[in-house]
Amino acid sequence: MVVELINTGSELMLGRVLNAHQQWLCRQMADLGWVVSRQVAVADTAREIEQAVREALARADVIMVTGGLGPTSDDLTRERIANLLGKALHEDQAVLAHIQHFFDMRKRPMLPRVRIQALVPDGAQVLWNPNGTAPGLAMEVQPNAFRGNGKASWLVLLPGPPRELRPMFMDFVVPLLRKAFPNETEFVCRTIRTIGIGESLVEHTLIGPLQPLVEAGLELGYCARPGQTDVRLVAQGVDAERIVRQAEEILRAKLGEHVYGVEEEELEAVIVRLLTEKRKTLALAESCTGGLLAHRITNVPGASAVLLAGCVTYTNEAKQKFLGVKAETLEQHGAVSKPVAREMAEGARERTGADYALSVTGIAGPTGGTEAKPVGTVFIGLAGPFRTIVVRNFNPVDRETFKHMTAQQAMELLRRKALEAS
Amino acid sequence: MVVELINTGSELMLGRVLNAHQQWLCRQMADLGWVVSRQVAVADTAREIEQAVREALARADVIMVTGGLGPTSDDLTRERIANLLGKALHEDQAVLAHIQHFFDMRKRPMLPRVRIQALVPDGAQVLWNPNGTAPGLAMEVQPNAFRGNGKASWLVLLPGPPRELRPMFMDFVVPLLRKAFPNETEFVCRTIRTIGIGESLVEHTLIGPLQPLVEAGLELGYCARPGQTDVRLVAQGVDAERIVRQAEEILRAKLGEHVYGVEEEELEAVIVRLLTEKRKTLALAESCTGGLLAHRITNVPGASAVLLAGCVTYTNEAKQKFLGVKAETLEQHGAVSKPVAREMAEGARERTGADYALSVTGIAGPTGGTEAKPVGTVFIGLAGPFRTIVVRNFNPVDRETFKHMTAQQAMELLRRKALEAS
Repeated sequence: MVVELINTGSELMLGRVLNAHQQWLCRQMADLGWVVSRQVAVADTAREIEQAVREALARADVIMVTGGLGPTSDDLTRERIANLLGKALHEDQAVLAHIQHFFDMRKRPMLPRVRIQALVPDGAQVLWNPNGTAPGLAMEVQPNAFRGNGKASWLVLLPGPPRELRPMFMDFVVPLLRKAFPNETEFVCRTIRTIGIGESLVEHTLIGPLQPLVEAGLELGYCARPGQTDVRLVAQGVDAERIVRQAEEILRAKLGEHVYGVEEEELEAVIVRLLTEKRKTLALAESCTGGLLAHRITNVPGASAVLLAGCVTYTNEAKQKFLGVKAETLEQHGAVSKPVAREMAEGARERTGADYALSVTGIAGPTGGTEAKPVGTVFIGLAGPFRTIVVRNFNPVDRETFKHMTAQQAMELLRRKALEAS
Repeated sequence: MVVELINTGSELMLGRVLNAHQQWLCRQMADLGWVVSRQVAVADTAREIEQAVREALARADVIMVTGGLGPTSDDLTRERIANLLGKALHEDQAVLAHIQHFFDMRKRPMLPRVRIQALVPDGAQVLWNPNGTAPGLAMEVQPNAFRGNGKASWLVLLPGPPRELRPMFMDFVVPLLRKAFPNETEFVCRTIRTIGIGESLVEHTLIGPLQPLVEAGLELGYCARPGQTDVRLVAQGVDAERIVRQAEEILRAKLGEHVYGVEEEELEAVIVRLLTEKRKTLALAESCTGGLLAHRITNVPGASAVLLAGCVTYTNEAKQKFLGVKAETLEQHGAVSKPVAREMAEGARERTGADYALSVTGIAGPTGGTEAKPVGTVFIGLAGPFRTIVVRNFNPVDRETFKHMTAQQAMELLRRKALEAS
């Protein structure tokens, strides 16, 4: 099955927003065994939309188009696609009632323009939108005059807001595709995430041991990110499950504790799972990561069973008041120092009664560096039922990457230590 | 000038990573006056890369290709494009020396495979990569056999890691394009960000007043996001600057304080700027946003002049210990309540001496809701040199959207109040 994705929106071409649909829809489709072969983004002008859809209709069995179903004057997708397929639009009374209800519930006036969202091309299926006003639309293009082989294609139009698109895809598009395309071949994709080892060394370590499986059909992919490397294991056909499982076993044996998670599992999810299993609690004392550690850990459902408290202590006074760091330690060594990282971690642990406390103090930049402690210098402390550990790292990167890399290093320090705990 | 962007990477098609290059490069190009007309993502297989590049060469003056220049076996871009253009590859000694130096500096072994990054197609320009090993490549395809009109095209290949791609684009690609394409027409694009007003009402308010400018060439775009709407003002030609400036003036007059920023300016940047200008300081007391407020504010360079401290108090004990919330208040009203939000804000303000303190307590879900306080309930408190304000909101959305919307609402409460301050 050939699947293509078209994202419409001038804001995409102007780089004003991030195209999150591309990842999300590609991911969902891959998990269903259908890999999207091409994704195209174009401006939301009539000509661009029509051209992109016409080209995709010439190639693909399924085309998903996102955006341009809303009420404003730059929402053209519905009308241009009806025009391209030579279908008339009619006002659907059930959709109109849903839209009216949506505004009534919120006690907001419904402007006349909003009614265009109730227009449906003749013969199209309406995909209900409980989270917004514009419904999605699905239509089988048969006969497909754009395709040399005359095969039919499915065209699925989805609204732009992610909160509307995602449930609609799950609840309506997946059942529709499963019914239209039964008996697809087996497809297995598994991503293994590693930390603390470079991309070329990961491949070098794996290439020999995995060779027999590559000959049996395993496809390998590598993706380097700041401080970590993802390895992707893909196989198709009746043996897919077995090949990927065996590859994962070999990979884990070779890379050991460098492997921290699978799929899109982030370090924070691993930390919350690990500490929950071991019934341990955590406190955080952050300076230069500025709450990122707390934010990431609290993104994980169930974090409240693990995280007792976090302090973002930007000033010296806050470090003293909330964490009990000593004035003389600050004066003698400076806020960015090993002794301060130690006192921050120990203070957070003591004041919260947590099993572990992580501390971070450093210079995120762009200003604030010195010769002895340049921008990028960071001290990470870990207090626990052992002698407090403090490591010094150097992450000379932009402010946001600095926060991210430092948070990764802090969580990795905790993960390794927590793995040892009984 | 027709510009197209091709992002290669199976991880994109499998939805394993977000395509941040698309936004970033489109944004940079638009700011230079060159709007990307099409962006395509394909897997990093030889056939897909060749097909996408061949199609783009038939249409575009400039084609930028990202990814696939690294050392692993799925990095095929360099080789496939040389093949497509009929160019031989030679090993560039200066590039090889740079790669060797990169590994030496890090005291890491250089594996033989890494050398393929020093291969350069005959006639290509090398774009230096101070932040990694693989250089970029630029080549003028002349004559361009793929294009009906025989016009030349520029093909620019950039490495996948953002930390390498971005400086390379700025330092080498921009000067190259400016030299190759002088005298381009004026292009002005300005995004105005509004909060607390729906998309259709924004358009309804603006459509009449902006009509004369639309007739003079103004293009309008709207983009709805959780709790906010961006309005995009675009014009081309000699009058572009004036048209967009006048449109912005009208928009600001009509939408008033709903306008909080321009371009990609986030609320946190507005807060830091506003408080810096007014010489005010801030403390944070977060429960359900779990550090997101602190993280967002500390993402802004210069935040340390404004933010004194933040506490992430997930447990009742932490609310008492770090913020001085009274045990009886917690017992009588529950942690998610108006009185607790008030005591959190007042406690944070008192203990840090900040001018303002924001507090948030609520139920992010997916569990923890009750009939009286369902998942999505949140209380936001603001203490300052006035009677403490507490508002109750209801954001019945997924956990991450909940954190985001709640943070927006909290910052918007602070922004409005800080605007009033002398």
